Amino acid sequence: MATIRNGVSWSLAILSVVTLSCVWVGRSAADIPKETFEALKLDPSAGPKELHEALTKRYRDPEQGAGKGKFSNLWEPIPMSKYFDPLTFYEPPTAVKEVAGREKCVECHSDETPGWVHAWKKSAHANLDKIRELKPEDPTYYRKEKLEEVEKNLRAMGRLAADQPLKEVGCIDCHVDIGTDKKADHRADLRLPTADICGTCHLQEFAERESERDTQTWPKDQWPKGRPSHALDYRANVETGIWAGMPQREVAEGCTACHNSQNKCDTCHTRHTFSVVEARKPEACATCHSGIDHNNYENYSLSKHGVVYKTLGDQWNWNVPLKDAFTKGGQTGPTCATCHMEYNGKFSHNVVRKVRWANYPAAAGIAENINDEWSEKRKEAWVKTCTNCHAERLARSYIELMDKGTLQGLEKYKEAHAVVDKLYQEGLLPGQKTNRPPPPEPEKEGMAQFYQYFWTKGNSTTAIEQEVGAMGEDQLAKMHVSLAHVNPGNWTYSDGWQQLNATYSKVMQWDTEIRDRVALQERVAKLEGGSPTAMLKLDSTGKLVSLGGLGGGMLLAGSMMFWRGRRRDDEE
Amino acid sequence: MATIRNGVSWSLAILSVVTLSCVWVGRSAADIPKETFEALKLDPSAGPKELHEALTKRYRDPEQGAGKGKFSNLWEPIPMSKYFDPLTFYEPPTAVKEVAGREKCVECHSDETPGWVHAWKKSAHANLDKIRELKPEDPTYYRKEKLEEVEKNLRAMGRLAADQPLKEVGCIDCHVDIGTDKKADHRADLRLPTADICGTCHLQEFAERESERDTQTWPKDQWPKGRPSHALDYRANVETGIWAGMPQREVAEGCTACHNSQNKCDTCHTRHTFSVVEARKPEACATCHSGIDHNNYENYSLSKHGVVYKTLGDQWNWNVPLKDAFTKGGQTGPTCATCHMEYNGKFSHNVVRKVRWANYPAAAGIAENINDEWSEKRKEAWVKTCTNCHAERLARSYIELMDKGTLQGLEKYKEAHAVVDKLYQEGLLPGQKTNRPPPPEPEKEGMAQFYQYFWTKGNSTTAIEQEVGAMGEDQLAKMHVSLAHVNPGNWTYSDGWQQLNATYSKVMQWDTEIRDRVALQERVAKLEGGSPTAMLKLDSTGKLVSLGGLGGGMLLAGSMMFWRGRRRDDEE
Amino acid sequence: MATIRNGVSWSLAILSVVTLSCVWVGRSAADIPKETFEALKLDPSAGPKELHEALTKRYRDPEQGAGKGKFSNLWEPIPMSKYFDPLTFYEPPTAVKEVAGREKCVECHSDETPGWVHAWKKSAHANLDKIRELKPEDPTYYRKEKLEEVEKNLRAMGRLAADQPLKEVGCIDCHVDIGTDKKADHRADLRLPTADICGTCHLQEFAERESERDTQTWPKDQWPKGRPSHALDYRANVETGIWAGMPQREVAEGCTACHNSQNKCDTCHTRHTFSVVEARKPEACATCHSGIDHNNYENYSLSKHGVVYKTLGDQWNWNVPLKDAFTKGGQTGPTCATCHMEYNGKFSHNVVRKVRWANYPAAAGIAENINDEWSEKRKEAWVKTCTNCHAERLARSYIELMDKGTLQGLEKYKEAHAVVDKLYQEGLLPGQKTNRPPPPEPEKEGMAQFYQYFWTKGNSTTAIEQEVGAMGEDQLAKMHVSLAHVNPGNWTYSDGWQQLNATYSKVMQWDTEIRDRVALQERVAKLEGGSPTAMLKLDSTGKLVSLGGLGGGMLLAGSMMFWRGRRRDDEE
Repeated sequence: MATIRNGVSWSLAILSVVTLSCVWVGRSAADIPKETFEALKLDPSAGPKELHEALTKRYRDPEQGAGKGKFSNLWEPIPMSKYFDPLTFYEPPTAVKEVAGREKCVECHSDETPGWVHAWKKSAHANLDKIRELKPEDPTYYRKEKLEEVEKNLRAMGRLAADQPLKEVGCIDCHVDIGTDKKADHRADLRLPTADICGTCHLQEFAERESERDTQTWPKDQWPKGRPSHALDYRANVETGIWAGMPQREVAEGCTACHNSQNKCDTCHTRHTFSVVEARKPEACATCHSGIDHNNYENYSLSKHGVVYKTLGDQWNWNVPLKDAFTKGGQTGPTCATCHMEYNGKFSHNVVRKVRWANYPAAAGIAENINDEWSEKRKEAWVKTCTNCHAERLARSYIELMDKGTLQGLEKYKEAHAVVDKLYQEGLLPGQKTNRPPPPEPEKEGMAQFYQYFWTKGNSTTAIEQEVGAMGEDQLAKMHVSLAHVNPGNWTYSDGWQQLNATYSKVMQWDTEIRDRVALQERVAKLEGGSPTAMLKLDSTGKLVSLGGLGGGMLLAGSMMFWRGRRRDDEE
Repeated sequence: MATIRNGVSWSLAILSVVTLSCVWVGRSAADIPKETFEALKLDPSAGPKELHEALTKRYRDPEQGAGKGKFSNLWEPIPMSKYFDPLTFYEPPTAVKEVAGREKCVECHSDETPGWVHAWKKSAHANLDKIRELKPEDPTYYRKEKLEEVEKNLRAMGRLAADQPLKEVGCIDCHVDIGTDKKADHRADLRLPTADICGTCHLQEFAERESERDTQTWPKDQWPKGRPSHALDYRANVETGIWAGMPQREVAEGCTACHNSQNKCDTCHTRHTFSVVEARKPEACATCHSGIDHNNYENYSLSKHGVVYKTLGDQWNWNVPLKDAFTKGGQTGPTCATCHMEYNGKFSHNVVRKVRWANYPAAAGIAENINDEWSEKRKEAWVKTCTNCHAERLARSYIELMDKGTLQGLEKYKEAHAVVDKLYQEGLLPGQKTNRPPPPEPEKEGMAQFYQYFWTKGNSTTAIEQEVGAMGEDQLAKMHVSLAHVNPGNWTYSDGWQQLNATYSKVMQWDTEIRDRVALQERVAKLEGGSPTAMLKLDSTGKLVSLGGLGGGMLLAGSMMFWRGRRRDDEE
Repeated sequence: MATIRNGVSWSLAILSVVTLSCVWVGRSAADIPKETFEALKLDPSAGPKELHEALTKRYRDPEQGAGKGKFSNLWEPIPMSKYFDPLTFYEPPTAVKEVAGREKCVECHSDETPGWVHAWKKSAHANLDKIRELKPEDPTYYRKEKLEEVEKNLRAMGRLAADQPLKEVGCIDCHVDIGTDKKADHRADLRLPTADICGTCHLQEFAERESERDTQTWPKDQWPKGRPSHALDYRANVETGIWAGMPQREVAEGCTACHNSQNKCDTCHTRHTFSVVEARKPEACATCHSGIDHNNYENYSLSKHGVVYKTLGDQWNWNVPLKDAFTKGGQTGPTCATCHMEYNGKFSHNVVRKVRWANYPAAAGIAENINDEWSEKRKEAWVKTCTNCHAERLARSYIELMDKGTLQGLEKYKEAHAVVDKLYQEGLLPGQKTNRPPPPEPEKEGMAQFYQYFWTKGNSTTAIEQEVGAMGEDQLAKMHVSLAHVNPGNWTYSDGWQQLNATYSKVMQWDTEIRDRVALQERVAKLEGGSPTAMLKLDSTGKLVSLGGLGGGMLLAGSMMFWRGRRRDDEE
């Protein structure tokens, strides 16, 4: 039983494309940002086939973000890499010799890997008929409409006959070829589905997520175009210098374990249920949006927003679409999706259209930009979001608090950074002249750089730099994220301002101690008969060193903020 | 349809007051602590109107805790302040020109701010008739009794006619005037409900929470009367020196974001469902009772108590009142409310009657007091609580473990504190004589003071002080809170004793290094021809300084524990 | 109504033993590892009575792990100890004079300690008839089979007549004597149930958990036999030197609060519901498997595995046995139990059969062993586990990533450890020669030892040692545990590699600073007329000290890794 078909007659295919494009454009294309059509040089009235082809071409283009990236000569994949970036690294398994068709896949794998078969059996993919039976009064009726949209997409692309319904989405559709009725050879035909494959059926969602490349623009190129975003998160990963350059590849792939939304859809819709209920709940975001710097989930969880979810969420209907969540689903507080997938009243898989701070207030140009026209427009979109549940005046008051509070934290960081930078310029960081090996390619020596988090040797990095680096990269980021998610106290005490002050105190104490030590060294040098500045020409054991030697040039670098190390490598 | 009425005839009003006060006193007043009636100079038989007026008068009195507090001249509100302390700062919005009546509020805001309207529609406030239909056999029948109590209160206060039922509690009741049938002008009439307004209907609960002012007394004035408590948490906030004095107002308001239970009821009963289910679940407390110092929620969550809640709580009926939770609600493990809202077998909104350690074992006088008569009485109340589920011997054994464990942690802190204090007395903290600017008013220079968490400049504070401060303020507090919530391991390893020891080691290492450095400086000074103590008269660059200059007087301060900085400013 | 009977005629008892042993062996004994029968010198066909007696004899034997352990002379129990180790320390309460029978227990305690009675009333123990009514088509039908197995056990042990069903398990059965129909005197007869008492009925589970002693073997005795495991976790506790030696007994018992699975069953099945639903959920494990070092729960929670549980777990049937969880229970992602209680396709209470890293990669011999035959066999068992839901190639790729990533972290730790060890060997740690009191018995002075986490005095420990100790004990452990639980980013950034690097930087900076200071001290000594090495003979105040004095011998110790301090004391 071939439920999806490759071979349909041309006449049917053409007919269905024509029919579909009209209907489809009417409903959905309007929700795909115009910036995407412009970038793809497509008319917004383009049909599914044309749109999918254009999106896929860009998606798979190494020049536009696919694959190993600009530091590709510096690193090699490990066995797990094929699962993080299947487009580039996946090869069918040579050890599995079976050749099998649609039903056989399910049959064998019920024994081989029962967990995934059971999950699939609970999925929408295995239960399309149930969706088809939904009545218009059912709050999840949209699923039936979605199924019809999928069928139209498949027909437009010649993968489903006009007179046939889609009966199931089975193993073979995603892992070999959508709609095939042939047998597949594990060793030759197997694939892991990349986003463009999911996007054959789920074209609207694919277009939405790919639109992040186009709408995430920065007025002064603070970040490369389309970044940070899910759509280019793998590129951001492989084009970060220290990621590509560090010798510990298994450690590096810890970054990739989150930075692969670009490559797949199952970072949010876990295989093989691909449940929307799961993806709509905050925990789905938590896997990546948590931890030492962007602790979004932790802050949300402790906020009133999160408390409402955690105490009352079990009474909400999670199967209704986001737009109906409050009205038909009984939702009474926001989730991640409620605020971040919304833009001007509509919900989509583009979650970056309201980005202003991008989680990192220390990133160059972000704070300077926070009140200009670009940022104001996005702020207005936020005010709209907040006024779904709050008075406009409250929304504006709170956003002002968030912005000002963040800037106050930034000032503290800058103050400490300048102190460390001065030590660095004077060559006074511990071991700076004697034991500071250069970082691995493509990184360049610098003070408090991002690479120092992941690569250390001798006195590269000093503890002082680790600490001032953490102020910008972690503490300030957490302070801002806490403010942004309305977690009381956290930005002031538990995970923000107080930490910034404690670290500031460390930095200042180090500065005092280093300068006290230098003063004493100078006094001893003077007693030894040297000049007061003789110390500068002596290494720590008192031997004379050449000023033009190790550490000479590096004193001129300086004054970049910690995170810049990350950005610089990212620039295209 | 005016469902709540202002205008009722005097005869009816008087009649209902008489009727009510009898019934009401019979059931509820006995649960309001006698201390509150004494403080208010009221007879316990006082009727609702009299009680509400007396409570409200005190609640709104700036002399008794309302408003900006004793440091009011030092700080100005920011736009968000009007939402944290509406009584003092809220003004109706000037930008909204609509004049609207009862139905119109709901109608417009269904479009304007649909989230809050949907939440309200799910609330008890919008569904009083459903409550009225409850049968005595329903485990939530108490809600019907509660509704009748509310109606009696309203009748007693002349806000509901004797022959009329209360039909709903709508926007206009809380945000303009309870029971009004007039139209309201946003620019002139809008208010945010403070606790006394909620307390018009919910008088019993209002009286209970206000009673914290009266029952939270300390035998030796360890804390000011009524503190720490929810009833005066905003006062505690604004009368903390560093809060009032710090220039970063948006950071300061992070404290207020928790410290506003005094001002409102929606810190626990989130608007606009005001759900009791939410407020009864531990997450409702977590927003504030979590984090770097009083990590009550984290410890509860990992304790057996919390595990039972997290694994089985979805089977409990959360709509039954606390007194019936185990019997009728099927509860099998305690929540925050189970233990903290209970006192001698009864549940109320006064949660401080069993307080002994007040979360902060480093607070002066707390440990010294822990076995005296005052504390013993409260311990006996705890034993009663524990024996709801545990043998008395186990309860006593555990409380002994908690107390002794806490004292062991306290000793470690004191040992380290004395070492730092000695350095401070001798003027040996890094930069102490050269770079220690005074704190902002009203704070006074001191060693390891609370203000140093939130204000730093130069070598005010040193890292040593930050660390020893954290021992008392955070590590010891967490160790105690872990003990108090029976989170195995945490008090010993993850978040308590081990941290105290690690920080102790840092402090001791610093002490050794500083004294080594001083010894060497002295030797160099001697070589330079000075006396062994010449160093004391030299700054870090070797220049002579006047002993009477910066840092002279401050050497006499000393020896206050970190948290004292907080308390000192709190004293009234 | 005596529902369980002591007094049954011999003929019946013998008959039932014969009947049972056949059936029982047929079904269950095969699942008890053969290693256990070998260790007990029992034939696998042994009946319940024989097996229970053999297990109990070993379980209660102080020579084989029961009781105070080899440092018993060093410590005394506190009042709470009787609840952590009832076998050794529990005595019936002298204050409670009641003598009561089966029904009276429930009756009185319904008033005295209602919480536990209500919990029991919801338990299987109080509702055996409901279990008996289960139909074979019920997914929880296994409970009926389990009840029949229990009855057979009781009959075999002469505790239930052959013709009588077990009607309930009441207070008196567990707390006095199983099946008794006598009255019990609180002061003489009361007991707390140890695992062997639970194991009278639940023999299969008792045997499974006790089998951890036999299957947890190490090829090169990296850990003592049977450890680490739940079956000997109390022994591991009391035979750790610093646990026994530290004076703060209430702090020490924080360790015991987790380390008592050996002694009781309610560490996972909380009294008095003893719910399997609770024990099957990850939070049941979280109480102990969380925190600063083995943060298994935190990592699981943020992994995709945990996210599926947290977002969809409320739709699963938690009452089905683990083997049916995916098929009949609708489970779609793994819990702790899914992976850790499984071994070669079967589920049991032995959770250590696949242990390879034992959470602590810094433990001596673990890493060296990770690719040998012993480890490979266990890895293959893991691959089987993973392939329930994943392709074999993915499983192998990921385990390789986990192993290599862990080894990369280990290298970083070793590099820092060697630097601190060198300082220690040279006597250069701050205060090492002047202020380093010896640890309490039975601990021996050493560098970065486990005891230093819990006992400090003067410059025992230095901050440097605390930090390098934390690298091995906490940061590396967390890095590994994050890798093992597939928590993206955590092993690289939030809680692993980045922390190791930050601490490495601290250690290197300290090393540089200490050696700079020494160099300067030498220069000053030279100026004072001494030799360049004179410093070594001077204490910090410049006085001459004898080289043979304090700290002489200890310089020879060295180079043991931090955790070794723990192990060394554990060795038998």
